[in-house]
Order: sequence, then structure tokens, then C-alpha cells
Amino acid sequence: MINVAVFGYGNIGRYAEQAIGQAPDMNLAGIFHHDEVEQVIALHPDVVLLCVPSREVPRVAPTFLKVGISTVDSFDIHSSIPEVRQQLNATATAAVSVLSAGWDPGSDSVIRCLLQAMAPEGVTYTNFGPGRSMGHTVVAKSKPGVKDALSMTIPVGKGIHRREVYVILEKGALLSDVETAIKTDPYFVNDDTQVIEVASLEDLNTVQHGVLIERDGVSGVTKDQQMEFKMTINNPALTGQVMVSCARAAYRLANKKQFGCYTMIEIPPVTMLPGSEEENIKKLV
Amino acid sequence: MINVAVFGYGNIGRYAEQAIGQAPDMNLAGIFHHDEVEQVIALHPDVVLLCVPSREVPRVAPTFLKVGISTVDSFDIHSSIPEVRQQLNATATAAVSVLSAGWDPGSDSVIRCLLQAMAPEGVTYTNFGPGRSMGHTVVAKSKPGVKDALSMTIPVGKGIHRREVYVILEKGALLSDVETAIKTDPYFVNDDTQVIEVASLEDLNTVQHGVLIERDGVSGVTKDQQMEFKMTINNPALTGQVMVSCARAAYRLANKKQFGCYTMIEIPPVTMLPGSEEENIKKLV
Repeated sequence: MINVAVFGYGNIGRYAEQAIGQAPDMNLAGIFHHDEVEQVIALHPDVVLLCVPSREVPRVAPTFLKVGISTVDSFDIHSSIPEVRQQLNATATAAVSVLSAGWDPGSDSVIRCLLQAMAPEGVTYTNFGPGRSMGHTVVAKSKPGVKDALSMTIPVGKGIHRREVYVILEKGALLSDVETAIKTDPYFVNDDTQVIEVASLEDLNTVQHGVLIERDGVSGVTKDQQMEFKMTINNPALTGQVMVSCARAAYRLANKKQFGCYTMIEIPPVTMLPGSEEENIKKLV
Repeated sequence: MINVAVFGYGNIGRYAEQAIGQAPDMNLAGIFHHDEVEQVIALHPDVVLLCVPSREVPRVAPTFLKVGISTVDSFDIHSSIPEVRQQLNATATAAVSVLSAGWDPGSDSVIRCLLQAMAPEGVTYTNFGPGRSMGHTVVAKSKPGVKDALSMTIPVGKGIHRREVYVILEKGALLSDVETAIKTDPYFVNDDTQVIEVASLEDLNTVQHGVLIERDGVSGVTKDQQMEFKMTINNPALTGQVMVSCARAAYRLANKKQFGCYTMIEIPPVTMLPGSEEENIKKLV
């Protein structure tokens, strides 16, 4: 049995807990809050799932990696992934870090990589939503003057998206200040972003999300190879599940002493599944 | 530059040659016919692509693997993959064999594996076609009394398929004998198969094919996670390209002395792409 701890108990943490409960080869080592780093280290689980906001990952992951506890996170700031991977790789000398184990970045990255191998020339479009973006919501909530927020992603085609950010303001806060803070944040700066003040988020709160990845590519010199991947999913449930599947991969890589930091495209897909390689090859290949 | 030889120069061999020509990091070491094993060994390329009928793979691959030349094949007899993998793994002590590197088995296997990791409970349906099946066509052609043949795959939903086998008979051959030989072959025995005598295959000859992989699964305890992968492709062009991308993976694994036989779900996806891991992570994750 693989001992897996959950660190951070928000939305993702709760879904990750459920996925551990369903895994035939895992034991829930414990659920820990942000201030319980020492307790996790004392327990020394095989893997700790970092269910914390992305921005905390570069600070929190090394505290576990340096004492030989493997980590999995769903760090989702695409532009910072190469840099954070290098940083965590340097710390993961006796443990494995799986970085950006969610659905995008994450399983979508694996799809994009596979499509690239199948048709090396061409264009891939990733169209998100419509759905609530967890990463963007966390960022919007963090801005001064924001009491609560929710960021929706609306696909406008060919990989371009609009963002609709619904905010409840704190007393005395100015919408124009909040709007500037959100629109200039790296998470939003490249997209057409609308900030909308609302009195309640009740009606907007959905975990439903989706993606459409399209590639029109060339295999060898043969054009018009058409491929697409589409899904409609419960967003935090999928993120929690992918983290748990990657915890299994982390455990196996660490057992083989293949220490270091990996993104999902660097991991043999079969290592994410319970059971022996032989069984899974028989069933899936 | 990776030196890649093409062994067997039929349909797949020609498309593989084109894909090697497009690869920025590969050199075409040569094209060889079935009786030129010694010439390939003398040349000692980094990787040889076995563009031969599936049934020849278990015999041909070891002749190269045992002298330290890595191989890639598109062996497509699903039920025999675990056994052939074990056999080739025993021979690949100083080389890498990538087994079943096509689109099904192959890239579809990676998709099925990934969907399983994203939603461990549930059902995956793989629906093929409509399109010509190369493996089934080769088998039909091999039967006594068959001058030429073409096998079409027609999806009937939920992963079930019909086979339409068009045959041109040799003089004096009986359709009923050919029909029995085809219908009792392991390639056809599980499917509803129709054998149809025709005077010409001209009108039927298409390389267009496709697949729809559907999964309705459960992430943790959250149901109704809907995922699908769909493609419409030139069949031998995609097979040739996937073999070439896997040749790159084989070369890299061999360079790291990670010898043995791998199916595609055992290979880190990023190793199939040209360029450094860092560049590809930046672009795709």
C-alpha cells in the first residue's frame, strides 16, 4: 500500500481524499492544514499531495522534497513551469516531485504531446470551457478589496478565450481599482477580461468544465490528419484524481530511485495505473 | 543525428521513409528488403523500423536486437502483445525494442491509458472506421485461393465492429473455402465478418481511416466524467509517423542504457519529440 497524505484541505483536497479512498493500492496517511508541515514530516508518508494555491507550490514543495518525501502538485501557472521544474528538480535528490499534475497543465499536456508525435507539423488549439477556472478564481480572490470572486472561461475559438470575473467587493473598495489589479495580473493580462460586480455568486457557482483540443497536422508529408480530444468534466474532481494517479507514478519512480522533478509528459503513462504493467498492457494496449 | 533504417518497403515502409525525411534529427540509413538482414547488421543503424507484416515481427526483431540494434515495429495482434513483449524483452539486453508502435495498438493505447488514470472506474469504447484495416487485409490476402483482398472495418457502436472482406479469387478457388479460412482466423473470429467476391478492388482502395474512443468514467466518486478522442487520418501515414517518433524514443532509452522491450504506454511521451525536454515542456505542458 502507498501511504498518501493530503496537504491543504480546500476544494481539491476534498476530491483528492475521495480518489485516495477509491484507489485499491493506497492508504490515506492523513489530512493536514497549511500550518502542519512538521506533522507531515514526522509521519513521513510516501507521497504528499500539495492541494494548495499554485503560488505556494514553489515554497512548500521543497520542505517535503528535501527530507525525502515525494510530492504531487497541480501548479497551473504555465509560463513558470520550466523554472519551477528546475528549482524542484534541484531539491528532489532523494524523492520525486510531479509538477503540474492536473488536467491543464496535466492530462491535456500529454494529449498535446501525443498529437505532436503523431503529426509533427501543424497547429494545436486548446479551447477551454465554458467553465469556472479555479486558478483564475484564486487569483481574483487574492486582490485587495475583493470579498469573493469567480472567474469563468469562455472559449471564442482557435485557442482564444474571454474571462468573465464576477466579484463581490469589500465595503469601500472601488471596482475600478479591483478591475485594474485583476486585468494586469499575469493570469489575465493576455486575455480579453471583463470584471463584473455582483451581490452573490450563488447562481454562478459551477464545477462543470470542459476542453476541446484540436489538431490539424501532417504525418510525414501527408496533410489533413484531423485529431481532437474533448471532455466535459467536474473540474476539481478530475484534478484530484489526476493528482492521485500521479502519486502512484511518483511512488514507483522513487522506488526505482529515479529521483527528480517530472511533468506529466515525462512520465510513462502506465505508471499512473494500479496493478502490474503486464495486466495493464494486456487490458489497454 | 539518429541513423534510422527502414526494413521492408511496402505501404508503411514508404510512409516511414517520408517521416524520417521530415525529422530534423534523423538520417535515413537505408531502405532494405526482407532478404537483406545481413546488410542492415553490417550497417548497424541506431534503430531499424520493421515495416513487415505483424506475424513476421517475433522472428525478425530478435535478429537485430541480439546484435544491439534497436527496433520499432507496429505489431498489431492485440492478444499476442504480452507474450511477444516478454520474448523481445529477453533478447533486448543491449538494445531497445518498441513494440506495437502504430495507432491501434499505439497512440490509441496511450489515450486509453490516460483516460483510465483520469477516471479509473468506467467503460472505454474504441470504435474504428469506417476504413480499410491493413492488418486484416494482409491476413485475408495470405489465405490460399486469394489473389487480392481488402478488409473494411465498419463501426456498429460500443466498440463492436463488422468486417467486410472483399476478395479477388484465384482461378479455380472456391469462395466457400476462402470464406471459412478468413472467418476462422483469429483476426476475424470474434467479429461479424462478410466475405464478398469482387472482380476489382479499385473503387474500394482507400487509406482513410478513423477512430472514436469514448469514456464515461468516475474520478474519485464523481460520476459522468465524459471524455472522447476522435480522429480521421491517412492510416499508413500515421503508422509510419508513429514508428518514426518511437524510433526517437528507442534511441534515447538505449542511450540511457534503459534496454528492453516497451509498448507505447511504458514510454515517457516527451521522448518521442525532437528537441530538448525543456523546449517541449515550455511549448506543450
